[in-house]
Amino acid sequence: MARAVELAARGHGATSPNPVVGCVILDAAGRVAGEGFHAYAGGPHAEVVALRQAGERARGGTAYVTLEPCDHTGRTGPCSRALLAAGIARVVVAVPDPTPKAAGGTARLREHGVAVETGLLAEEAERVNAEWLTYARLGRPHVTWKFAATLDGRSAAADGSSQWITSPEARADVHRLRARADAIMAGIGTVLADDPRLTARPEPPRASPEPPRASPEPPRGRPPLRVVVDSEGRTPPTARVLDGEAPTLLALAPEAPAPVPDGSRSDGSRSDGSRSDGSRSDGSRSDGSRSDGSRSDGSWAVGVVRVPRHPGGGLDLGLLLRELARREIVSVFLEGGPALAGSFLRQGLIDRVVAYVAPALLGSGAAALGDAGVTGIAGIHRLVLDDVTRVGPDLRLTARTAGPGLPRKEQ
Amino acid sequence: MARAVELAARGHGATSPNPVVGCVILDAAGRVAGEGFHAYAGGPHAEVVALRQAGERARGGTAYVTLEPCDHTGRTGPCSRALLAAGIARVVVAVPDPTPKAAGGTARLREHGVAVETGLLAEEAERVNAEWLTYARLGRPHVTWKFAATLDGRSAAADGSSQWITSPEARADVHRLRARADAIMAGIGTVLADDPRLTARPEPPRASPEPPRASPEPPRGRPPLRVVVDSEGRTPPTARVLDGEAPTLLALAPEAPAPVPDGSRSDGSRSDGSRSDGSRSDGSRSDGSRSDGSRSDGSWAVGVVRVPRHPGGGLDLGLLLRELARREIVSVFLEGGPALAGSFLRQGLIDRVVAYVAPALLGSGAAALGDAGVTGIAGIHRLVLDDVTRVGPDLRLTARTAGPGLPRKEQ
Repeated sequence: MARAVELAARGHGATSPNPVVGCVILDAAGRVAGEGFHAYAGGPHAEVVALRQAGERARGGTAYVTLEPCDHTGRTGPCSRALLAAGIARVVVAVPDPTPKAAGGTARLREHGVAVETGLLAEEAERVNAEWLTYARLGRPHVTWKFAATLDGRSAAADGSSQWITSPEARADVHRLRARADAIMAGIGTVLADDPRLTARPEPPRASPEPPRASPEPPRGRPPLRVVVDSEGRTPPTARVLDGEAPTLLALAPEAPAPVPDGSRSDGSRSDGSRSDGSRSDGSRSDGSRSDGSRSDGSWAVGVVRVPRHPGGGLDLGLLLRELARREIVSVFLEGGPALAGSFLRQGLIDRVVAYVAPALLGSGAAALGDAGVTGIAGIHRLVLDDVTRVGPDLRLTARTAGPGLPRKEQ
Repeated sequence: MARAVELAARGHGATSPNPVVGCVILDAAGRVAGEGFHAYAGGPHAEVVALRQAGERARGGTAYVTLEPCDHTGRTGPCSRALLAAGIARVVVAVPDPTPKAAGGTARLREHGVAVETGLLAEEAERVNAEWLTYARLGRPHVTWKFAATLDGRSAAADGSSQWITSPEARADVHRLRARADAIMAGIGTVLADDPRLTARPEPPRASPEPPRASPEPPRGRPPLRVVVDSEGRTPPTARVLDGEAPTLLALAPEAPAPVPDGSRSDGSRSDGSRSDGSRSDGSRSDGSRSDGSRSDGSWAVGVVRVPRHPGGGLDLGLLLRELARREIVSVFLEGGPALAGSFLRQGLIDRVVAYVAPALLGSGAAALGDAGVTGIAGIHRLVLDDVTRVGPDLRLTARTAGPGLPRKEQ
């Protein structure tokens, strides 16, 4: 199962809105007969890839799967039936599928006499699939807040200068993480101060030490959606986030002026709510944009979404996230600024924190985090440190808040 | 030599005002014949311990020493002569001795036909002996600034509450580091806000996996000196730092009122400047305190030192440090608050930073570091990360500034 979790991780960044899944098939004698992972949305499921590799050796064997095999026919057939057809005798599942549509695989397997166990390495399998499980359980995207700061928690010097606190290596690492997210989000303060592009520009991946087996290369997907939380509609028309290099969504308060130039796609009205099929379609819309948000000239469209205000100030970020989930955004990479991060934290909507800490001291300047609703030490937001990695001269700390479905701090 | 560096580290906290030194003797055939380290001030030097263990096997052999063997007769005879007497053929030294009094060991060995090499694992040997080398080269104690903060750099919540941001494990680790320092320093702000004891209360050490060889237990020394930087003489008479549990020194501006109660030892006048012999003496002084600062009732005395003001505000901390060096304080453990740490940093007097980072977020409250003289990003104080260790749920980061003798930022 540890190997299956490893395999699952290879799908990161390409499977959305599907989960990452890994599968290892042992033959009847307990030898590895096949391995697979879900490599991209629309591609074959992990079980199918592993079964194909195992062929006849799967008969009487055991399948280790990180997520309960699906039991519905989507873009691919149900994995439960593929396992039955291959003659698998035993299935070991790490985490049950929380979605009503896909769940039931375990039940079907049991009905047909297959021995099924669940819960093996559940914690590891939960973690590798944290984004999708949060999305499936809570109906909102998983939110990773990333910040870069000095050892004393400053993200800029007193005069506002902040280029560069962290190293080129750390910045390259950020692009890698951005590329894995479905959406990259920033507040209007950051847009006005830094005019960021909010695009993922990862370096070409180095050759993998172990090439993925029996899984074709995923098709090049659309770039992560850029989301600007801009309550009052202050995004300047010249802002880089409006440059068409990636799709952009401006989240505005209901009555705020829309800053997008005429001719841009504005989808403030709710669409039909049905799920897209995940493949790029060429069907043009009335505003000249295609269903995947690309325009006929190759650039990406800018959309607007209206979000009610939150009684605590700013927009209701929970509603914004639900709207993003409706658009099949499974993971959000939140980058700045301190005020927006504080609002997310106050509203209990941060799942993971990735901090790039530079071994440097400033002593003054903008803090990495703004008001997070804490007055006394009893209200501190505690995290669990999952990973500490040196990235060039800097340190990357990855921590998580309470897991999905667990009680969260309310404002 | 790596083994000699390991051995040297065992002396940490007990050798002051002497360096930590480790020595490994190989016999003529290259087999380990003896090991030793300098275990406590006044105790035998590393070379002597290792030579004793090697006995006749040292003849024709090689000695690996982390610091140039001394050539003067202090409390123990010169190690250069001991190495010659034992018939050592080759000496490998990591770091030369920077003090005029003790240096010359290498020259004497060479004069007598011993092959001497220097520089092997010099960086590691520098690091293990950073405190003493700073003291010896710069004539001031090595300063470690310790702070505890959240991931976003806060040392207290908005209402001032700070107990506890870090874990019991982290606090125990702090006591261990305090116990290794010659002095523990805090600013008056911290004394007024938290009334700390500033004593080292380490847990009893666990049994060492490998007992030190041939080195007797060090005698129990005096507790670290508590130093309060109190420009205006505002330390309350009831402050815990005045409780007599450890010696205390109040650093006051020249004209500030002395807050110590009548009858306390006040040594604002300079003493003769000679070095003490490091042993506890029973000779009473006119104020009833003994030469080591203990009083006849077993409690420790409170002293006062007058320090000129610094043009940049506060006291001239460089002069305070030189005064501490005169009292054979080799290492200072600086703990809070943010303002004093900022002053030390502005004056270029911090050598090492130890940060206990709790995986938690506050978003408001006191920053870990106050004004450090930085206005733009170009003035950032860059550090080099030496060590990252998990301590319970928290993280301990150890970083150093530019090495001793290298150019430092001036205010």
